[in-house]
Amino acid sequence: MTSPNHSTPDNFQAATLEDWARAAARSAPGKDLGALNWTTPEGIVVKPLYTAADLAGLQHTDTLPGFEPYLRGPQATMYAVRPWTIRQYAGFSTAEDSNAFYRQALAAGGQGVSVAFDLATHRGYDSDHPRVTGDVGKAGVAIDSVEDMKLLFDGIPLGSVSVSMTMNGAVLPVLAGYIVAAEEQGVAQAQLSGTIQNDVLKEFMVRNTYIYPPEPSMRIVADIIEYTAQHMPKFNSISISGYHMQEAGANQALELGLTLADGAEYVKTALARRLDVDAFAGRLSFFWAIGMNFYLEVAKLRAARLLWTRIMKSFGAQSPKSLMLRTHCQTSGWSLTEQDPYNNIVRTTVEAMAAVFGGTQSLHTNSFDEAIALPTEFSARIARNTQLILQEETHITSVVDPWAGSYLMENLTQQMADKAWAIFEEVQAQGGMTRAVGSGWAKLKIEASAAEKQARIDTGQDVIVGVNKYKPAHADKVEVRDVDNVKVRDGQIQRLKQIRSTRDNVALQSALTALTDAAKSGQGNLLALSIAAVRLRATVGEISDALEDVFGRHRADIQKVTGVYAAAFARSGTSDKGDKGGKSDSAVDSKDSKDSKDSKDSDNSDDSDNSAEGWDRLKADIAAFGNAHGRRPRVMIAKLGQDGHDRGAKVVATAFADLGYDVDIGPLFQTPEECARQAIENDVHAVGVSTLAAGHKTLVPAIIQALRTQGGGDIIVFVGGVIPQQDYAALLAAGVKGIYGPGTPIPASARHVLQQIQAAQALQEAREQKEPQEPGHAAAA
Amino acid sequence: MTSPNHSTPDNFQAATLEDWARAAARSAPGKDLGALNWTTPEGIVVKPLYTAADLAGLQHTDTLPGFEPYLRGPQATMYAVRPWTIRQYAGFSTAEDSNAFYRQALAAGGQGVSVAFDLATHRGYDSDHPRVTGDVGKAGVAIDSVEDMKLLFDGIPLGSVSVSMTMNGAVLPVLAGYIVAAEEQGVAQAQLSGTIQNDVLKEFMVRNTYIYPPEPSMRIVADIIEYTAQHMPKFNSISISGYHMQEAGANQALELGLTLADGAEYVKTALARRLDVDAFAGRLSFFWAIGMNFYLEVAKLRAARLLWTRIMKSFGAQSPKSLMLRTHCQTSGWSLTEQDPYNNIVRTTVEAMAAVFGGTQSLHTNSFDEAIALPTEFSARIARNTQLILQEETHITSVVDPWAGSYLMENLTQQMADKAWAIFEEVQAQGGMTRAVGSGWAKLKIEASAAEKQARIDTGQDVIVGVNKYKPAHADKVEVRDVDNVKVRDGQIQRLKQIRSTRDNVALQSALTALTDAAKSGQGNLLALSIAAVRLRATVGEISDALEDVFGRHRADIQKVTGVYAAAFARSGTSDKGDKGGKSDSAVDSKDSKDSKDSKDSDNSDDSDNSAEGWDRLKADIAAFGNAHGRRPRVMIAKLGQDGHDRGAKVVATAFADLGYDVDIGPLFQTPEECARQAIENDVHAVGVSTLAAGHKTLVPAIIQALRTQGGGDIIVFVGGVIPQQDYAALLAAGVKGIYGPGTPIPASARHVLQQIQAAQALQEAREQKEPQEPGHAAAA
Repeated sequence: MTSPNHSTPDNFQAATLEDWARAAARSAPGKDLGALNWTTPEGIVVKPLYTAADLAGLQHTDTLPGFEPYLRGPQATMYAVRPWTIRQYAGFSTAEDSNAFYRQALAAGGQGVSVAFDLATHRGYDSDHPRVTGDVGKAGVAIDSVEDMKLLFDGIPLGSVSVSMTMNGAVLPVLAGYIVAAEEQGVAQAQLSGTIQNDVLKEFMVRNTYIYPPEPSMRIVADIIEYTAQHMPKFNSISISGYHMQEAGANQALELGLTLADGAEYVKTALARRLDVDAFAGRLSFFWAIGMNFYLEVAKLRAARLLWTRIMKSFGAQSPKSLMLRTHCQTSGWSLTEQDPYNNIVRTTVEAMAAVFGGTQSLHTNSFDEAIALPTEFSARIARNTQLILQEETHITSVVDPWAGSYLMENLTQQMADKAWAIFEEVQAQGGMTRAVGSGWAKLKIEASAAEKQARIDTGQDVIVGVNKYKPAHADKVEVRDVDNVKVRDGQIQRLKQIRSTRDNVALQSALTALTDAAKSGQGNLLALSIAAVRLRATVGEISDALEDVFGRHRADIQKVTGVYAAAFARSGTSDKGDKGGKSDSAVDSKDSKDSKDSKDSDNSDDSDNSAEGWDRLKADIAAFGNAHGRRPRVMIAKLGQDGHDRGAKVVATAFADLGYDVDIGPLFQTPEECARQAIENDVHAVGVSTLAAGHKTLVPAIIQALRTQGGGDIIVFVGGVIPQQDYAALLAAGVKGIYGPGTPIPASARHVLQQIQAAQALQEAREQKEPQEPGHAAAA
Repeated sequence: MTSPNHSTPDNFQAATLEDWARAAARSAPGKDLGALNWTTPEGIVVKPLYTAADLAGLQHTDTLPGFEPYLRGPQATMYAVRPWTIRQYAGFSTAEDSNAFYRQALAAGGQGVSVAFDLATHRGYDSDHPRVTGDVGKAGVAIDSVEDMKLLFDGIPLGSVSVSMTMNGAVLPVLAGYIVAAEEQGVAQAQLSGTIQNDVLKEFMVRNTYIYPPEPSMRIVADIIEYTAQHMPKFNSISISGYHMQEAGANQALELGLTLADGAEYVKTALARRLDVDAFAGRLSFFWAIGMNFYLEVAKLRAARLLWTRIMKSFGAQSPKSLMLRTHCQTSGWSLTEQDPYNNIVRTTVEAMAAVFGGTQSLHTNSFDEAIALPTEFSARIARNTQLILQEETHITSVVDPWAGSYLMENLTQQMADKAWAIFEEVQAQGGMTRAVGSGWAKLKIEASAAEKQARIDTGQDVIVGVNKYKPAHADKVEVRDVDNVKVRDGQIQRLKQIRSTRDNVALQSALTALTDAAKSGQGNLLALSIAAVRLRATVGEISDALEDVFGRHRADIQKVTGVYAAAFARSGTSDKGDKGGKSDSAVDSKDSKDSKDSKDSDNSDDSDNSAEGWDRLKADIAAFGNAHGRRPRVMIAKLGQDGHDRGAKVVATAFADLGYDVDIGPLFQTPEECARQAIENDVHAVGVSTLAAGHKTLVPAIIQALRTQGGGDIIVFVGGVIPQQDYAALLAAGVKGIYGPGTPIPASARHVLQQIQAAQALQEAREQKEPQEPGHAAAA
């Protein structure tokens, strides 16, 4: 034996790509190398192997960070000098509670404040408005006036701590409230740093927290760009958000293409005001979701910067600040599961790493319990620590854009850019994003992507550990935060009374009239006028109303895509990846109400399955019901209160319709009474309430009561969405016939709903036979 | 404005590397670009930016997976065809408990069995041996005979489930037990697949679960290689392990270089038996730790494969299987923290990703509570799910060696290879690893690296979130697994009695004599003879004894490095990164015993700090004690029972000595009585027990009792290591004066120990003044 010695060069046998292909094919399924390709949801074909040959023909692989086109990062040194900002989005019911949380987070390593508002505030209603009874203090902090704002930022120096506000609908009173609160802290507008989301276009596609129709909404955007460009040089006037698109089911290329198109539209709008592009473009920022599709997410962030530079050059921007895309990212809330929730710490870590490798400027990591409720102090700490560990323990920050040069990543970046650019150009061909939104094209595009995704999950093509595969034997108890929204609302109403009784109502009225006049005339800056009104203690609702008088409230068309879910389901063939035949963990039958926990664990009755055969059997049973009763089973999918997250509702509506149900979709923002009226008028068998914003405890009993009061007591109510286990018993006791949590395969819920309708029909028929003399009695019972 | 259009090519302004360097320097600290370089623990300089220029001069960047030198992976298709094997290392006290755990894990997505043995088994003692009273069933499963083995694998088909066994000391009886258990399941040796660690060389450097001296130990290794090459073609005869080196404080290059040198030594040993290299080399596998140093870990795995091919070529290997390095990885146990333990889910995820990007063949992910105790069912599930999520949800598996081409990663791979190769060559220059081990050189090299690392942490240069920075305001309660080792031991003793009373003791004795004879003569295969003895129900202890009669038990020299900790501490200057002045979360004073939880939270007394000034002050105080009492404070650092993990003990000894303490190190494997005798003979002020294997509840009260019995009742006892919070009260009640959990900065514990010694001295002096007539009384009290 000779002693190993490196003084002679290595003499390794060289292999060619053909050698590799032969070897790879030997281990590939069916000896077919092509079987190893992975086609992403956006249609990108990812190969099992990338080599230097895959760099051929790529542009922009030799660029540098801090220089056009900023593909490798907006700054030259990135995290090597300063890591991304840890900015955790949070809001808890009251200004006081939220303030305490922010102060604690800042003390424990958080680096900025990011405010989540409740839905009443988003939609421009004061807390005492009758439409928002179930929404106040849920899903975020209730803000009615500058007094609330002052409590929210009490002890937080707004001259040095940057503040991000996720606000789009009531953007004028909220931004004005922040400015005036700072003013009364002694901080001038020019010193304020932070971001207001102010991205109303995407609200018309997803999330739906708009107030006014698209055209006046865009005027508000332009007024804010103009005002901040003049007075608030350190403040980002828009956070152009793809986040909610991915959350609503858009694939990454769709998220990227549509969001860049939104950005271009805002630039066009500002340019139409004759603003100099370099005077405002540097204050436009972006916001992406980072999901579990790791390589695609890194590539997306790199591609986004490349494309934005291209777009801004086309607008004649010169300043580097205008050309470089800066972004906030948030790990995907959609990817979190209610089942086995500690798995979410793993998911969030993977997503955070993708965001960091992609070069984000700031990051929110979700808490592991956010699929169930608002985070607790404990879960919020783990989420923040996820970022601190990446920053402090891994040395990942030491190198800028570490994936640069990777055969895979450079190739994927180019492909992602090309896919997104094609979507961007498709929007331009329609005349821009306002039109693509107005026609509903963009919204349907996202909904189709969402339905496909749901079908991939329900058939097990996409795996979610603990949900459609590797289900835990039993559920762990997780402590979740509960909100007493009655108490929160009472407190807010108290404070509103106080403000209204102590202000100068004459001066206030004239400030509000000035706003209405400006809305009418098209003259004057609405933000400047809102600030003046807020100084006089105008409330969020009053400012919104002053504008609504002229602009009106937007009512969205209700459209649904059809056939997409069924087609994706069919493509999967027999579901051999997911667990077969198991009823969803989360489908809880009303008969289980005594001990829903135990029954949940043991309930493996095979009354639905996600195979192609199960699908066909269910379709046949639905058709048989129609034949037997003279009409198809009819369900109304409803959203109640101010919760506009309608991805789930739309996906369920599409899939139920594909299965043969007669499906109505209720308009957004219905009250329980309005919903009951529509359900009775349309003579539906069942109302399915989709809830994601914690209003279910108030709104679901209210719809059941409204149905009974209005004579629709036979109509079944079921609920889907984000509902903590602890609320199940109360909902079932109130009369809910089925609860379908996140992760429930749609065929399982569709089967369960059919059974409940059949049972209700049988009961009704038995009653009618028994008491033929008393028609109407049963319905009113 | 022109509409953005991609039909014209992008016209971005090109930047040069000089442009970048100028821009980067502007944001660098002190305008010095060099300040952004990161020098790794192994001395590699990592720059903030890598470009195509950094590929110049690198070899092996154009290689392909599945081909020499296997840098990009041992197989052509890697995870695209089959992901790594999820193999979770576990063992729980009894064979029955462990069996239940394995069966559950296999049902829930685990893909192989990996057995953790208790320390008594490792060291070749039956459970009824008086030296192992505190060790039975702690830290793993107690195995005394083939009957235990049969229970361990009950219902697990050994012909198809691969089994990994972490065994080095008692490798003969354990491997023989597995073979005979399979035989009695009806599975032939040729069908068995799995791995036995059998890497005894590293035991002499770290971990210390050897039994015999190096030379006879190497004979056993060779016998096993020979036997498995002939009879067990699917079984890996050695798992050459760097894991424990990194756990003991080795940096990655040291781990890599020394482990490859171990591997080369095993090959040489087998070749000396005139075995054909290609007949056995394909069954050698590796085992690495994956810590938090993300880029270095990915580079390490890539470099490891390159270097192993180089080494095996030098041995004349021809078969691809001999040339390719296949490896198991485990996330770092060292990186887990007792404080804020859910952070460990994040750490383990990051490490798992590094292992996967590095191309491991199988992986163990640690449970988040393993810094405290053996995992619970819950924590084990989250650990397993971490891997399942990476495999099933991220699409990371779709691409082979995704970092290939990355300017950073290719450059780092080469640098890591060069650093490790230099260490490898240093070993060869000493005549190989047996010599480098025998001289203590290798062990000291690791201990120096460990002391440096500890100093970096204690000074805040290395951050551990929740430990030396961002400490949580209060500790969360974590449910940990408790082991009743008295009950386990009683059960094992029962079974041993049963076996000994029912077997053919005459036949057995002759089988054991044959073993002893073979040990003496050097003739015959010790594994074959062990199998014969196990068939006759020889126990682990009996087989070990039969060989010990000839080989003897190895006693390690006690050496410690000096000055290293102090030097690294000094390099940090003033500690401006870590939390200053805070006493460790884990240092619990005996006076706090009533409510250690509360006092722990509020204890921020500034009686130690980790600044250079604090260090000097402490040194001065220790010197002052020496001047006042005529001798320096003297402490004995002890390991009790069979726990050979001596990293902590050695690091503490080094640092205490650097501070001015007079430090004795007790030999490994002392009984409490032996330790007490030595402490009294050496007239130490304090005994510090380092414990990592859960024996503290038995052994620590025993040493206190032994000191009292032998007249050393004035000697203070303190404890460091892995101790669940729930055990603190009992230890303090037993008389322990200080408990220093993981994460305690050494200056904090050194300060606390000094205070306790001072207090004890004062008490003794007061007593002597008060009762001058009764010398000796106090000591016996």
